[in-house]
Amino acid sequence: MSITESAVRPEKQSGADPVRRYLEVRALTDHLAERLSPEDQTPQSMTEASPAKWHRAHVTWFFEEFVLRADPDYVVYDETFRYLFNSYYEAVGERHPRPDRGLVTRPGVRDITRYREHVDAAMVEALQAGRLDDAALALVELGCNHEQQHQELLLMDIKHLFSIHAFGPVYVDREPDVPGRPRPMGWRGFSGGVHEIGAVGSGFSYDNEGPRHRVFLEDFEISDRLVTNADWLEFMADGGYRRHEFWLSDGWAKIKETGWEAPGYWHKEDDGTWTTFTLSGRRPVVPDEPVVHVSFYEADAYAKWAGARLPTEFEWEVAAGTLGDARGQLLDPDRCHPGRVTSAMVGDVWEWTASAYLPYPGFVPANGAVGEYNGKFMSDQHVLRGASAITPAGHERITYRNFFPAASRWVFAGLRLAR
Amino acid sequence: MSITESAVRPEKQSGADPVRRYLEVRALTDHLAERLSPEDQTPQSMTEASPAKWHRAHVTWFFEEFVLRADPDYVVYDETFRYLFNSYYEAVGERHPRPDRGLVTRPGVRDITRYREHVDAAMVEALQAGRLDDAALALVELGCNHEQQHQELLLMDIKHLFSIHAFGPVYVDREPDVPGRPRPMGWRGFSGGVHEIGAVGSGFSYDNEGPRHRVFLEDFEISDRLVTNADWLEFMADGGYRRHEFWLSDGWAKIKETGWEAPGYWHKEDDGTWTTFTLSGRRPVVPDEPVVHVSFYEADAYAKWAGARLPTEFEWEVAAGTLGDARGQLLDPDRCHPGRVTSAMVGDVWEWTASAYLPYPGFVPANGAVGEYNGKFMSDQHVLRGASAITPAGHERITYRNFFPAASRWVFAGLRLAR
Amino acid sequence: MSITESAVRPEKQSGADPVRRYLEVRALTDHLAERLSPEDQTPQSMTEASPAKWHRAHVTWFFEEFVLRADPDYVVYDETFRYLFNSYYEAVGERHPRPDRGLVTRPGVRDITRYREHVDAAMVEALQAGRLDDAALALVELGCNHEQQHQELLLMDIKHLFSIHAFGPVYVDREPDVPGRPRPMGWRGFSGGVHEIGAVGSGFSYDNEGPRHRVFLEDFEISDRLVTNADWLEFMADGGYRRHEFWLSDGWAKIKETGWEAPGYWHKEDDGTWTTFTLSGRRPVVPDEPVVHVSFYEADAYAKWAGARLPTEFEWEVAAGTLGDARGQLLDPDRCHPGRVTSAMVGDVWEWTASAYLPYPGFVPANGAVGEYNGKFMSDQHVLRGASAITPAGHERITYRNFFPAASRWVFAGLRLAR
Amino acid sequence: MSITESAVRPEKQSGADPVRRYLEVRALTDHLAERLSPEDQTPQSMTEASPAKWHRAHVTWFFEEFVLRADPDYVVYDETFRYLFNSYYEAVGERHPRPDRGLVTRPGVRDITRYREHVDAAMVEALQAGRLDDAALALVELGCNHEQQHQELLLMDIKHLFSIHAFGPVYVDREPDVPGRPRPMGWRGFSGGVHEIGAVGSGFSYDNEGPRHRVFLEDFEISDRLVTNADWLEFMADGGYRRHEFWLSDGWAKIKETGWEAPGYWHKEDDGTWTTFTLSGRRPVVPDEPVVHVSFYEADAYAKWAGARLPTEFEWEVAAGTLGDARGQLLDPDRCHPGRVTSAMVGDVWEWTASAYLPYPGFVPANGAVGEYNGKFMSDQHVLRGASAITPAGHERITYRNFFPAASRWVFAGLRLAR
Repeated sequence: MSITESAVRPEKQSGADPVRRYLEVRALTDHLAERLSPEDQTPQSMTEASPAKWHRAHVTWFFEEFVLRADPDYVVYDETFRYLFNSYYEAVGERHPRPDRGLVTRPGVRDITRYREHVDAAMVEALQAGRLDDAALALVELGCNHEQQHQELLLMDIKHLFSIHAFGPVYVDREPDVPGRPRPMGWRGFSGGVHEIGAVGSGFSYDNEGPRHRVFLEDFEISDRLVTNADWLEFMADGGYRRHEFWLSDGWAKIKETGWEAPGYWHKEDDGTWTTFTLSGRRPVVPDEPVVHVSFYEADAYAKWAGARLPTEFEWEVAAGTLGDARGQLLDPDRCHPGRVTSAMVGDVWEWTASAYLPYPGFVPANGAVGEYNGKFMSDQHVLRGASAITPAGHERITYRNFFPAASRWVFAGLRLAR
Repeated sequence: MSITESAVRPEKQSGADPVRRYLEVRALTDHLAERLSPEDQTPQSMTEASPAKWHRAHVTWFFEEFVLRADPDYVVYDETFRYLFNSYYEAVGERHPRPDRGLVTRPGVRDITRYREHVDAAMVEALQAGRLDDAALALVELGCNHEQQHQELLLMDIKHLFSIHAFGPVYVDREPDVPGRPRPMGWRGFSGGVHEIGAVGSGFSYDNEGPRHRVFLEDFEISDRLVTNADWLEFMADGGYRRHEFWLSDGWAKIKETGWEAPGYWHKEDDGTWTTFTLSGRRPVVPDEPVVHVSFYEADAYAKWAGARLPTEFEWEVAAGTLGDARGQLLDPDRCHPGRVTSAMVGDVWEWTASAYLPYPGFVPANGAVGEYNGKFMSDQHVLRGASAITPAGHERITYRNFFPAASRWVFAGLRLAR
Repeated sequence: MSITESAVRPEKQSGADPVRRYLEVRALTDHLAERLSPEDQTPQSMTEASPAKWHRAHVTWFFEEFVLRADPDYVVYDETFRYLFNSYYEAVGERHPRPDRGLVTRPGVRDITRYREHVDAAMVEALQAGRLDDAALALVELGCNHEQQHQELLLMDIKHLFSIHAFGPVYVDREPDVPGRPRPMGWRGFSGGVHEIGAVGSGFSYDNEGPRHRVFLEDFEISDRLVTNADWLEFMADGGYRRHEFWLSDGWAKIKETGWEAPGYWHKEDDGTWTTFTLSGRRPVVPDEPVVHVSFYEADAYAKWAGARLPTEFEWEVAAGTLGDARGQLLDPDRCHPGRVTSAMVGDVWEWTASAYLPYPGFVPANGAVGEYNGKFMSDQHVLRGASAITPAGHERITYRNFFPAASRWVFAGLRLAR
Repeated sequence: MSITESAVRPEKQSGADPVRRYLEVRALTDHLAERLSPEDQTPQSMTEASPAKWHRAHVTWFFEEFVLRADPDYVVYDETFRYLFNSYYEAVGERHPRPDRGLVTRPGVRDITRYREHVDAAMVEALQAGRLDDAALALVELGCNHEQQHQELLLMDIKHLFSIHAFGPVYVDREPDVPGRPRPMGWRGFSGGVHEIGAVGSGFSYDNEGPRHRVFLEDFEISDRLVTNADWLEFMADGGYRRHEFWLSDGWAKIKETGWEAPGYWHKEDDGTWTTFTLSGRRPVVPDEPVVHVSFYEADAYAKWAGARLPTEFEWEVAAGTLGDARGQLLDPDRCHPGRVTSAMVGDVWEWTASAYLPYPGFVPANGAVGEYNGKFMSDQHVLRGASAITPAGHERITYRNFFPAASRWVFAGLRLAR
């Protein structure tokens, strides 16, 4: 969900032990940050990105602001943090300007770690003491999901930051991937008619996933695997980036402006081969991995070149609901990169859909600051479905609606075809 | 359709005498330009706008390029015009950079008039001689519709240009409007279920209006009149432009950036009253006229403030198909301004809908340059329905899909509510 | 003096009949505008430029504002013109924003002609009636010089506007220049010591040319002709635009930003030869003409490449004061282009000097709006000396201090060397 | 010398023990950085500024590049540092883009400390072994001066970075200053005639301080103290920032663009008093301290308001050469802020002069990369004389020519008057 967030429906989360759940989520964030020096955690490489230490503080502030502050006995760690680590909650008050997040050198990494410990102690205490009512527990679960989103963002942002460095730092050291046999693309057919779409209400979901409602679909087919790097190289070889007929007008303008000629992070080496920057440094492009770091414009152009189109988010959800529970690569801190292409519809890369990010019929934002922004980003963004190789396991859902502006390339995003 | 255009489905137009039809459309353009001096016709007041003389030449080039050039005996008026007056047809070749249209002082107004006469003579001759086949006749009808769109654009652009002048030139002189009795807003209810949407195929339509297809709608209500200036003044008085809770995030950012506090062209006079710039100069805001020159963001914020929402384009079309053929104000060159609010769903102002501009299921672009751009603008734009007080009569249709970016304010656009 | 102007010292002008003088200056402006259509006179091709019709009105407003308004019986032509045609006189009041001058379509060319006639009639009447005192007569002479400056600006701005047109309109039709024999460059030596610099006080001069004062100079030599196109082609062939060692840091940054690889208006044809855009259209570069349309950065880099330097404005003035009254090409409306290089120090092209534009010791601005800006432009501009092929004859002076920002290329500017 | 540097004349430095000199300079840099966390040392708060850790590495690279690399036995610490820490030496090769210095998180602070130790060991060894010839020793002295300049820049940049933080971090904790009795301004007179200007050649100086040469000056007077905060408050109270008549055109444009209404870092508190951000946090403005953080435009406007002018750099140097060796506040790491105003001409704040930064007659750049840029910044910058409260003692000289663009406000710059 990237630079934006959606609020949870205030329903009780059942199942897992909330303390354990909370601590597991928190521990993963710390684990992801361990490999980053204080210097690595400080800068902001573009307006859309945030410093790693900001992510670590912001997710902590979320629990403090929406759960702990309700308790009159809670001692706020530092009142200035409300200003520094609010992301976009207008109702909470003034906040630090987003483009300057990289200039907030204090609190430093060590102090943010202490802040995390302070909040964790209070949270665990409140959870264990049973002091939180259902509404508060729902906010805890929301906070955990919120933090999981920021785990993905933290990795996206670090990748972008490191990619700018002339000598490409390595976030995680690992062996090069060995290319495998190409997997041919097939199609799966689905019948049209009135389908139900959206979260059903058991288990956690963001409120933008509801209300569950009916849509009318025509018959459609969807590809049984993601578009791969090998596919993409064919598109490039066929002049994909130079032939206006495949491109949306805005996408073509972007090409003229930026000179895009390959996916984000790709670089043509002197010997004519392509490499891509990964969280393990610069690596040769592996043909049978799904293409990743393409914008909506590129995904759409590819689909047109291929004589197909992108699926709508509704088609995608119907297909994913039918095709079973297989998962591609989800977050493995020792990999942080998609795996070889499979038949799974969830995992590896987020998939651009043909759908604009709009409210479902009957959508009503929640009350208060938490719910303030349920619909606030519902213009000029595009829906992505699935999940990526840096999405924490358990955070993925087939009703999940991720969204980004059309030109975004630092998302771990690729595509699948429909017709 | 503004800065963008869509191509026609190549089906034969029946009915009217095509020579008469052609000449009537052409004559209206000339009539609209008559009040403009050569100096008025030259500048471009912003990138999205075009000089009046460019509009007059561009629509003429359209007939030359797509109809006349097919005839090997046709003598092209001036080969440089292909470069100068192509708007965005990549397949036609290189073209003059859009932001510099106001710097092309030659050909001048007189030469463009001669160009129009040259093309008109050839067109009339070809039409009268029966030399045009059905495909060509469809292109003529497309060209007529294209020119009608540009008639509206020409007026929008002149209004914008004149509004920048410190002493507001008058395009058309007319008496001030007399405010009438306010008309209360009521609601019309519609049943949900599967509805058919899109052009049915008799008579002209743009191909983005098809294919006709089914959508599933929930029950809905739609307001029986447009939002008026009086309504809007209430919204403003209630802090509408200062309360973040009503605004999409991008809209709120726009307010911070631009300082919007009222619709486009509005100005607060020293006595505290509001005036608006019209094509008849600056005038007091008339309470019972529909509000006009609001962006999508403002329309959406108003709807939220009013406890309602914008209709989807599908709801709008279903309602308009039911409510009869009443028309509000369409283009009257001696008025060029909406009339008092009525119950008509078509006319006065274009109506922002909740729908993003996306292809209908099964949409396939036409072949060649004419059809090149059918879908090329289908990203990050919002659908408007209805028609405005500067839309030429006969150009309006209930299946018509106009579209503009969310922040546009020089369109004659307002809104109606749904719930 | 370009986009800026300096005020005159209020001393009486002797000699010529002021009515005849006034009418001659005014007639030349009209003559220069005759070849321009209303459309040509309307746009502003960049912020630094102004529309031709604006120039024509602004110089007229100058007489109205500073001479005629003093007469209580004078009937102002149109009070709005004070707002529209004030260039930068803060003391006169609010004015139209400079970047939007091209959007002021009204008054049109015809009305501006009437405005000129109105002011001319009043001016001639006042002059003939002997109603103007010495201070007023000095302002008339200042107004005449001001208008002469704008004659040069009008031609610079039209050249820039036409150069943007893909099919380069012709301002004045004339035969191609025939290249002549190259003229070798020699050096003239001058003795150092204390020299006097600045206007001596008889005849008109701008106040930035005074007070006359002493400077200490070392011995120096100055080249006996301007740098030619042939010279410049050698510089280019020797990598002049690609070798950082010749460039000021800001100049090198400009090259990186803009891609400069030749003087302004030059274009490399498909056959490898260079052409330049002139007011007679695109023409081959003539080797023995002085190079023109180079920025200060380029002039400075050339001098370093040549193992020399630019003269200071003081060296230039001392040399010009010694070398006699020869004049190169001044404004000939049927040419508007430098001639073959000669030994004259004045004419053909303005010459960049090494001097920053700063006040002379003891410089004191005049009182009131006219004198408001004597020193207002004395920062971050560079002095040019001489005069160009579009400077009206009689307007040139060896104490004349023209000035422009270092990156300016639309000035008719070249250089001469010193060592 | 700020963002730019000048190279030394390659003459032997006599006097102090070079090892001790070297180590003292290096130790001061480390001392200044000690109070900064790794996070503080990482960001770049604007293009003109650099991260503290970059300063620390860049000055080290200077010794490595220009002194140690000449020794074939020297083991380069890390070859990538040449790319990362070259500031602007084109002859040395490609370098990291300046605006992205804040994104180079690696090497981190610890590694840069190791780099410094590595270079220090090699430098001390080379110096003690007597392996460096006179040219190399001159480069060592240049390197020491270069590092002293960067000590001042480091503090300027940290002040700017901290000032952006909403809760103003403190670099050095100290007691508030107690205002003293105001010191009236007097004038010192000097006789005109031919004066000698520039470095005389004994002891270190940058080559832009020579050659020593003659200038002719008129009689002049110079104020016997700096302009104070109390003076500046009078200027402000008299509408100084709102009255166009005092301002250069570019300065007035800057006011319109930025809204300047007080010196840099000043803030008007709710009670109407003014505070200023210092390296000890936000503090009340002390009336009898010299005003600091004003741009050239403001200094020039103030002088005009006061009925005076800025001295030229030649007048300043003649006056300073006469008035003795008194020093105001120079760098004291426990203060980092000007002291109360005194009669000294050197210290407290850099003083804007009326002079543009131009080469002295006969100036010739040194050979090679070190000398590459002697004159490269000699356009569109303004000379400042004196030294500031963050200039390391021993680095100040009365022939020293500091220079910055006219709009710069993060320099510790103020002014003195002349007439």
